[in-house]
Formats: sequence, structure tokens, C-alpha cells
Amino acid sequence: MGHHKAPRRCKVFQDQLKEDSARTQACLRAVMKGLHSVPVCAAMHYAVDGGKGLRGFLVQEGARIHGIDPAQSVYAAAAVEALHAYSLVHDDLPAMDDDDLRRGQATVHVKWDDATAILAGDALQALAFELLTWAEIGSAQVRLALVMELARAAGARGMVLGQALDIAAETADTPLTLSEITELQANKTGALIRWSAEAGAIMAERNREPLRKYADALGLAFQIADDILDVEGDEAKTGKRVNKDADAGKATFVSLLGLDGAKQRARDLVAEACAALDVYGDKAANLRQAAEFVISRDS
Amino acid sequence: MGHHKAPRRCKVFQDQLKEDSARTQACLRAVMKGLHSVPVCAAMHYAVDGGKGLRGFLVQEGARIHGIDPAQSVYAAAAVEALHAYSLVHDDLPAMDDDDLRRGQATVHVKWDDATAILAGDALQALAFELLTWAEIGSAQVRLALVMELARAAGARGMVLGQALDIAAETADTPLTLSEITELQANKTGALIRWSAEAGAIMAERNREPLRKYADALGLAFQIADDILDVEGDEAKTGKRVNKDADAGKATFVSLLGLDGAKQRARDLVAEACAALDVYGDKAANLRQAAEFVISRDS
Repeated sequence: MGHHKAPRRCKVFQDQLKEDSARTQACLRAVMKGLHSVPVCAAMHYAVDGGKGLRGFLVQEGARIHGIDPAQSVYAAAAVEALHAYSLVHDDLPAMDDDDLRRGQATVHVKWDDATAILAGDALQALAFELLTWAEIGSAQVRLALVMELARAAGARGMVLGQALDIAAETADTPLTLSEITELQANKTGALIRWSAEAGAIMAERNREPLRKYADALGLAFQIADDILDVEGDEAKTGKRVNKDADAGKATFVSLLGLDGAKQRARDLVAEACAALDVYGDKAANLRQAAEFVISRDS
Repeated sequence: MGHHKAPRRCKVFQDQLKEDSARTQACLRAVMKGLHSVPVCAAMHYAVDGGKGLRGFLVQEGARIHGIDPAQSVYAAAAVEALHAYSLVHDDLPAMDDDDLRRGQATVHVKWDDATAILAGDALQALAFELLTWAEIGSAQVRLALVMELARAAGARGMVLGQALDIAAETADTPLTLSEITELQANKTGALIRWSAEAGAIMAERNREPLRKYADALGLAFQIADDILDVEGDEAKTGKRVNKDADAGKATFVSLLGLDGAKQRARDLVAEACAALDVYGDKAANLRQAAEFVISRDS
């Protein structure tokens, strides 16, 4: 034993993100093994591949600070990444955002067709709930709580509502106000980020409040950063078209707060997110770094 | 007390179907109460409205023969009807079957638009899983088993696979064989019918085998009857276009077995389904009538 390993919690965030993301991907590959050879199943594999894996990291890190091993939490991480992937596949459809590029690659409906994208998304949502029933995660009570919260976060009082508000905004006569766009994003991206961060506390049957506060500030900061990237980003790095929202005349945090105002608001939210973690002390170092990362990323 | 009521189990099937369907609809209305006013949520209400409610009946009747009250099982009935409704909304999309008529009314994407239909379907799937977490249904263990089985039945090893095989068949050079179309239907419609029939045994934590055998024969008979209705049906009663499959040159049970052969096969399957219920004795009278109904219905 020539080397001493650093304790796990000191591993820097970027390494942890990569490690957790690889674990999530491996889990998804394992549970999707042996699927039929129809294009829909190939598209499911394609859709979950790549991506930063931030939501899956939040699940595993939130679990870790409660003493729960990734071997348990990875199924919940895989579930939220499957659900997130489904939402991107449907969101990219011509009838929705009509995006041809995602994570630097052709979107599912471009690589296959609309029907394949619709069905692959549908199957990925079902897979997400199936993953939460895996016995490794914990007691039936715990798994059921995860199912209930994810179903709420994903549905017409969560993510889908956010998408619906987004679509409604496109045909509205007046651009959204700051409070409207905040509500929209709290649903569209916030609900799933909240679930991801809370999952560890649910698994440990502990107080979810600190992680919820962290996640709500983080989710909003994440979206503001997305809007900034839409203006300032490098297409080669973000893997999606730049100035898409601005060109479409959509209200964004940048259009409402100005570029400097948006950056300041994102920084304030990161500080707020980190403050919510005080109760966990040093154990939350990675989650704090994750918050910093969210507003400093270039993709 | 001038009248003696007949015991519940003697109520004829048609009345029971209506009563159970009304209960399921009321449950769905209750859980969707207070949803946002965006079109997506209106479309969700629209999509679950109408329909025979056969799957929800199977859930409640399968529960009843195990002594479980509809007040418990109705949430599971509502779940499968929400999931079924989502599958119809997506299936009707222009990118899929491109149907403009369903249950005698404009399909969701015709009444609203494709984006609304995609999102309403997505939210209905999430709602289905949320409904299965309702405490009234039973223990956490039972609810989790229902979630797991529904997720499997709905996903890429069940209903979505069936849809994918159906789409693949449309572009294939040769029509499907009898064994291929049987496999397709076992997934496309069979998986959800099986879940519906088994749900009562799952809730009662009893042997699922008899109800599974019943459901598998019933599901196939149901699809054969559908193919017969496509040829012989009255558009005013079925509420959907007639000769749709035949016109599209699709292989159906009728094209493969002939009209008389298909009718005989359906009758044999109903006998098989009823035989599987022997273990329940008289308690299964309604389920037997349901099997007869499935092949004698005109819509």
C-alpha cells in the first residue's frame, strides 16, 4: 500500500461529478440491457448518453452526506437522469422547441423520427419509475416516497406545468414578468433539481428542508446561468444553438435583469444555496462547489 | 325497507362496469382538481373523459373478488385509466397513428395542438404513478409492487414496445405473421390489461396466476374483437374510423385468420379466460361476463 487515498469527501467536485455520472450511466446501461432491437430502444440508450449528470450527482451526493452509499442511491440517480432525458427528447420535438442539436449531437427525432422520439421519451419516463422500485434503494416506504415525490415533480404540478407555461408564453401578447418566469422555471427545471437534492434525505428519512432550500436556490441559479450561456456561450461548448431564446423574442432572466443584473442574481442565489447547507458542515463541500460550478460552467 | 337489494356480486356486469367507471372518473376528477388553467391541464381532463373504463373495472372487480373495497382499489383503477388515456393521446398524434377521432370526439391534438397532446400525455403518465402512491390503496409494499408492475407493463418491455413494433410493422416489407402480431398485441394492449386484472391479487397479496391467465386470454380476445370491429363496426358506435387498418394494408387477426376464423379464435379465448377463473367460483361471474362482453361489444 504505497499510497494513502484521500478520504472520499475531500475529492474535488469535478472528479466526484465524473465518478457519479459514470456510475449512473453504468446503472442505466445495465437496466436497459437486453431491450428489444427496435429503434425506440436504441433511441433510449442514445438519449441517456452524455450530459453532465448533475441531477444524478445531486442524488448521490445528497445521499452521501447522510451516510448512504452510492450502491444504494445510484438507482435513484439513474431514475432522475432517465426522467430528465425523456423531458429533453420531448422538449426537442418539432412540435415543441424544435431543436436539432443536443449535447453536441443530433436530437433523437432528427436521428430517427418524431414517433421514435415520442415513444423513447414515454418509455424513459416509465423506466424512471421502475428504477425507483429497485430493492437496493431502501425500504418500501422510502422507495414509495421517492416515487410519489418524483411523480409530483414530473407532472402537471411540476415539470410538465413548467413546459406548458413556457409554450403558453410563446404565443402570449406580452413577454413574461420576472415573477412569471421565476414560477415557470421553478416548475420546468426547479422541480426535478429539488427532487434530486432531496432524494438523499428521503432515503435517510431525515429532514429534507436544508436540501430543499439549497435546491430551490440552485435550480434558479442554474436557469439564470442557462440564459446567460444562451447569450454569451460558445456553441461548440454548450452543444446547442446560441442566442436561440433572444432570437425568438422570449423573455429571459437576461432580458429582464440585464446581463450584469442576471450575473449578480445568480451569485446571490449561489450564496443562498450554500448558506442552506450550513447544517451539514464540511460534509457539504461538494454540494457547495456544485453550486459554484452551476454559474461558472461554459456548457 | 320495502325492497331487498340483490347482493353486490349478482349485479349484472354492465351495471357494475358503469358504476365502477363512474367511480374511477370521479376519482380522476378529484385528483386533478385545482390543476393550472393552461391548455395542457384542460387536455388532461378531456383525455380521461369518456371511454368504457374496462381497465378500471378489471382493477375494481379483481379487487372485489379478493374482498377489497372499491374505496381502496379505485386509486389503482384511476391510475391505469390515466395511463391508458396517455397512451391513446400519444398514439393518435400525427407522427404516430394520425387519428382525428377518438371516442366519437376530436382527438387532443386536433382540439388543441401537438405540443399540448404530447405534454398532456406526459403528465397523465406521471399522474398514473402518483395515484398508485395513494395511502388508501394499502401497505407501502403493496403500492410499490403496483408501481413496479405498472412501470414494467407501460415501458419498453411492455406497452411502448408494442407501439414500437406496430410502427416498425408499418414500414416493413412483409406483413406480420400471426405469431408476430400476437406478440405485438400482448405488449401493446395485453400488458396493461394484465396489470389491471392482476392488481386486485397484488393488493390482496394473493396468487396472481389465475387472473394473469384470464387477462392474457382476455387481452388477445379484445384485440381480435377490435380488428373485427374495424371491418364490421359502425362508425357511429365505435367512434373511430372503420376499415382503417384494412385500408392501410396492415396485417390484422382478420386478415390472417379470416373473419370467421377470427371470430372462432376470439370465442375460444373467452372460454379459456373463463376457465382460468374456476378457482374463484361464483365470485368471478362479473369477470366472466366481461370476457363475453369484450367479443360481443359494438364499440
